[in-house]
Amino acid sequence: MTPTLSRRALFGTVAAASAAALLPLRAATAQTAPVPRTVTYTRKIGDVEVTTLLDGYFLLEQTLVTALDPALIAQGLADAALDSSAAVPLPVTGYLIRQGDGLTLIDAGAGGSLGPTAGNLAATLAGVGVAPDAITRLVVSHLHPDHIGGALTGGAATFANATVHVNATERTFWADPSNAAAVPDAMKPWFDLAGQMLAAYGDRVQTFDGDADLGGGLSAVAMPGHTPGHSGFRVSSGAAQALIWGDSTAIASLQFTHPDAGIVFDTDGAQGAVTRRRVLDMAVADKMLVSGTHMPFPGFGHVDQRGDAYAWVPEEWKLF
Amino acid sequence: MTPTLSRRALFGTVAAASAAALLPLRAATAQTAPVPRTVTYTRKIGDVEVTTLLDGYFLLEQTLVTALDPALIAQGLADAALDSSAAVPLPVTGYLIRQGDGLTLIDAGAGGSLGPTAGNLAATLAGVGVAPDAITRLVVSHLHPDHIGGALTGGAATFANATVHVNATERTFWADPSNAAAVPDAMKPWFDLAGQMLAAYGDRVQTFDGDADLGGGLSAVAMPGHTPGHSGFRVSSGAAQALIWGDSTAIASLQFTHPDAGIVFDTDGAQGAVTRRRVLDMAVADKMLVSGTHMPFPGFGHVDQRGDAYAWVPEEWKLF
Repeated sequence: MTPTLSRRALFGTVAAASAAALLPLRAATAQTAPVPRTVTYTRKIGDVEVTTLLDGYFLLEQTLVTALDPALIAQGLADAALDSSAAVPLPVTGYLIRQGDGLTLIDAGAGGSLGPTAGNLAATLAGVGVAPDAITRLVVSHLHPDHIGGALTGGAATFANATVHVNATERTFWADPSNAAAVPDAMKPWFDLAGQMLAAYGDRVQTFDGDADLGGGLSAVAMPGHTPGHSGFRVSSGAAQALIWGDSTAIASLQFTHPDAGIVFDTDGAQGAVTRRRVLDMAVADKMLVSGTHMPFPGFGHVDQRGDAYAWVPEEWKLF
Repeated sequence: MTPTLSRRALFGTVAAASAAALLPLRAATAQTAPVPRTVTYTRKIGDVEVTTLLDGYFLLEQTLVTALDPALIAQGLADAALDSSAAVPLPVTGYLIRQGDGLTLIDAGAGGSLGPTAGNLAATLAGVGVAPDAITRLVVSHLHPDHIGGALTGGAATFANATVHVNATERTFWADPSNAAAVPDAMKPWFDLAGQMLAAYGDRVQTFDGDADLGGGLSAVAMPGHTPGHSGFRVSSGAAQALIWGDSTAIASLQFTHPDAGIVFDTDGAQGAVTRRRVLDMAVADKMLVSGTHMPFPGFGHVDQRGDAYAWVPEEWKLF
């Protein structure tokens, strides 16, 4: 059973996340040995080792795509060899960054919030020999369930020794119940999940503003629109760098060719489109190595200009 | 150190393969835990589970590309976000196929024949819990070193319980020393390696002709040109199928946009180009799921028509 991200499914699965039962996918993983579901990819950025961790995937109903004609949605999916009449599959990725003696995690995957085809990040970390306690820092791009659900296990902090770093505006937005009035009903429980996550980490939560140096070669880059405090992250080591852009471009099959298209979950879709073009223009101009939570796994690539739009050029896998 | 595939390197590394020392990459793998270099991807074709196993990669010097203007080579590499002034990176992939109670391997990786960035297939198999003795059938697309080097370990058969299936014309070609006169000097040791591999498996080597049903849902599809008996393989399960085309298209960054371009190792480059177009036309017409040894890992995708040429549409990663 593959979950389709719809209003009802979201409500149901976020409720399930609170219960934090063992994920069906994890149980299935243990039973389907010897081929493990630990799907990772490691790449060096200068001296820094970045490992992408596949948390799983979910299906986004086509009706949740905004500012794009349904016929163009179908065409975009067909051009990507996807089912043009079905929901859009979106992978969910987290990033493990080894810098010096610290282990930073960018985003924590869905945990139990998106059903059985996602929430595998903790098991994936274990598969590469990293215990949850070894994570010293969790940096989140924003507070949507597929980025923070994995930070909770049974309602408690998954990463017992980690500080949590989140944009200050982002924290304020999700802490204010009055903002829940402006979102679709299905998203209202997301405020609860964000509150539970931040409460679980208590005084270990630290906020940053806009573009901020987070230390250890990592800096935040403000990319508002998808959420008010949505952030990307620049990983730098010597002359090498990569930009991890969170959800600023989230649908590879549609948003490069139609950069004004958004998702109903965008807090401010128009601002999100402006940010998207700004980030993509920067990626083109600087020929940057980039990645994003929902880019096709393993998620690294470059961006090409195509007239007024763009194209995704996935980087070939390498062993280093 | 990344090996560049050149005449001198080929000669040196094939000689090293005969010595069959423990590969440097395997030793490094054990030392660089906890992030393993076991890079695999599993996909179902109907009821059949196919796991792509990344053996590693090598670098192909641009001067070894045939029938393509150097300026177009550089442009093609730049369009793929690759270094337009450097050698072309080619991943090497093997396929583990689980059908019923048998385990089939399509191609065995490079073993020690291509230096330290390839030859990881046996370690990768071990990483997914498959011992060499568990392989019941090794099917080879052709007898080039990067497809059979891994079938030898210390000069003996790596897969002690496997039958080996090879096209009859292919076996005859590489068994005839007079054919060595027609190939570049660097390729002459390849005849020795092919002979050693077939000798190691002795009477467990079985030949097939042209398009042949190999049993268990697997059939060979003749794709001559790259070598005289070069074969692709069709994996079928119910209505589902995939075509694994070996090296018929081997350079993703160049041969889709320039399908007449070849590699100096092609036994018959003109025949290879005819075969390439025939296979790509079939993939387009039937909207087939396809894969190939040197396609960007994990290697599955579809082919689009682009005027008189083609485009590679990689399939997004999924968890099943």
